[in-house]
Amino acid sequence: MEIAMIGLGKMGGNMAERLLKGGHKVVVFDPSPEAVARLVAKGGTGAKTLAEAVSLLGPAGKPKHVWLMIPAGKPVDETIAKLVPMLKGSDCIIDGGNSNYKDSQRRFAELAARDMHFVDCGTSGGVWGLANGYSMMIGGSKEPIERLRAVFETLAPGKDQGWGHVGPSGAGHFVKMVHNGIEYGMMQAFAEGFAIMHKKTDLKLDLSQVAEVWKIGSVVRSWLLDLTADALKQDQTLADVKPFVSDSGEGRWTVAEAIDLDVAAPVITLSLLARLRSRDAESYGDRMLSVMRNAFGGHAMQKGGH
Amino acid sequence: MEIAMIGLGKMGGNMAERLLKGGHKVVVFDPSPEAVARLVAKGGTGAKTLAEAVSLLGPAGKPKHVWLMIPAGKPVDETIAKLVPMLKGSDCIIDGGNSNYKDSQRRFAELAARDMHFVDCGTSGGVWGLANGYSMMIGGSKEPIERLRAVFETLAPGKDQGWGHVGPSGAGHFVKMVHNGIEYGMMQAFAEGFAIMHKKTDLKLDLSQVAEVWKIGSVVRSWLLDLTADALKQDQTLADVKPFVSDSGEGRWTVAEAIDLDVAAPVITLSLLARLRSRDAESYGDRMLSVMRNAFGGHAMQKGGH
Repeated sequence: MEIAMIGLGKMGGNMAERLLKGGHKVVVFDPSPEAVARLVAKGGTGAKTLAEAVSLLGPAGKPKHVWLMIPAGKPVDETIAKLVPMLKGSDCIIDGGNSNYKDSQRRFAELAARDMHFVDCGTSGGVWGLANGYSMMIGGSKEPIERLRAVFETLAPGKDQGWGHVGPSGAGHFVKMVHNGIEYGMMQAFAEGFAIMHKKTDLKLDLSQVAEVWKIGSVVRSWLLDLTADALKQDQTLADVKPFVSDSGEGRWTVAEAIDLDVAAPVITLSLLARLRSRDAESYGDRMLSVMRNAFGGHAMQKGGH
Repeated sequence: MEIAMIGLGKMGGNMAERLLKGGHKVVVFDPSPEAVARLVAKGGTGAKTLAEAVSLLGPAGKPKHVWLMIPAGKPVDETIAKLVPMLKGSDCIIDGGNSNYKDSQRRFAELAARDMHFVDCGTSGGVWGLANGYSMMIGGSKEPIERLRAVFETLAPGKDQGWGHVGPSGAGHFVKMVHNGIEYGMMQAFAEGFAIMHKKTDLKLDLSQVAEVWKIGSVVRSWLLDLTADALKQDQTLADVKPFVSDSGEGRWTVAEAIDLDVAAPVITLSLLARLRSRDAESYGDRMLSVMRNAFGGHAMQKGGH
């Protein structure tokens, strides 16, 4: 079918490429002309503006489908605001990015008021998606999602695998948010386990070997372990990697949602807090603890910055 | 080769069976005659006593190998104490159970003083090991481990897959301990994520469908997720399952080891604490919190037991 891919970064660019390989007509737009040129070289129909992207979509008289693969938050609202005057009833915007599910529910309602469709699609698979396919958790109304079936089947790891219409508007981004929360916990568990083994110097463990052993037959075998094993094969000291861990929002949304729902999610919460702590090398809290130990117990207090 | 399997429970029985299928001569002993009979029916050489098991091992003049698959702690020490007078220098006891690695190091030293070998083998794979093979993390001296190569190759998922001599005495059980600590964290992360989705009733999520979608292409794909998906396919209410989670020691050993090593392992620690809390329905601590809220704020305090 025909679809426009707006945003040709790591995710959007590869998804457009996978769609092109799958035989779809893909109109591609990105603020960067180089990104557009890369996809045109792979068979995409390049657009210089958002308006041109919409105008290039066919076939005439049929509903248009515009897939957004852009940063969550304001960029999504701004792009939708620009798109709405170019679209008509029954056209559909798909947000495949990491938007907050509450924003997706609001956008769905705003577009529904104009008889337009909005589909939220939580997309997982990272840079490996181009080759392996993307896991997609999709929320919204049945009609546009069924119309887009051929697109989902091409992007997914298999025709009926790794994607699903999981619920009403917001459900796709909600499930993707929880997926990422779980991912935080799994990552932190592996990180702690390898840190314990790394510190157990008297056993002289080869962490690359351990990861290889665990890859097959163990209870912790997983895709994350496979990636970890590959990384450890290159360098198991990790000495060149700054111990600083970023986050892109879904972890904190998962924690907020758990609290809203009165669900105790201690490990997901603590995984987020561990990331926050990793960025706080000058920890005011740790300084304060040192001051208090010194104050009541006369314990030595080290001076200086980190 | 020839080997005695002592302890024919869920793990030992299946491992003996896998070894028999692999063409080894396996002498089997268990306090339960029924367990022995089951393995004899599968080709095992049954023994009525530990002494008979050792005496049935051949070939004459060659070192004997006795694999223990029994509960950790006292049973292992008692069995080794019985075995030692029946063995001679260069014979080897393998502990494939979930022993504390410090116990294994002590047992290695005790047997080494008699010129006997002791190998610690952390074994993972659960009830699926019979079909899929066992992941084995092995500690000890090179000589007996090389002698046992054919046994490890048969028990493992593949000849060169899923097993490894990871270090000196204790290293096998140490790595297995950390493996289980990581497993606690992964399990807890999944449990929390599914609990959040279960509580989000307005989205009417089908948790079985979500698990199926995640199984392929997602970042959280893993063997644990595969098992979870199978369970959710049967019943996603989990209403008949008591929310009570046991542990068999490795989690608490991992936490103690992390503290000994000055490694912060918050998520593995909290996963253990979540299990302890799950068993404490009459929580004295929660009663105390309710009393304190009532005392300073006059907040309502519910009366009665759980």
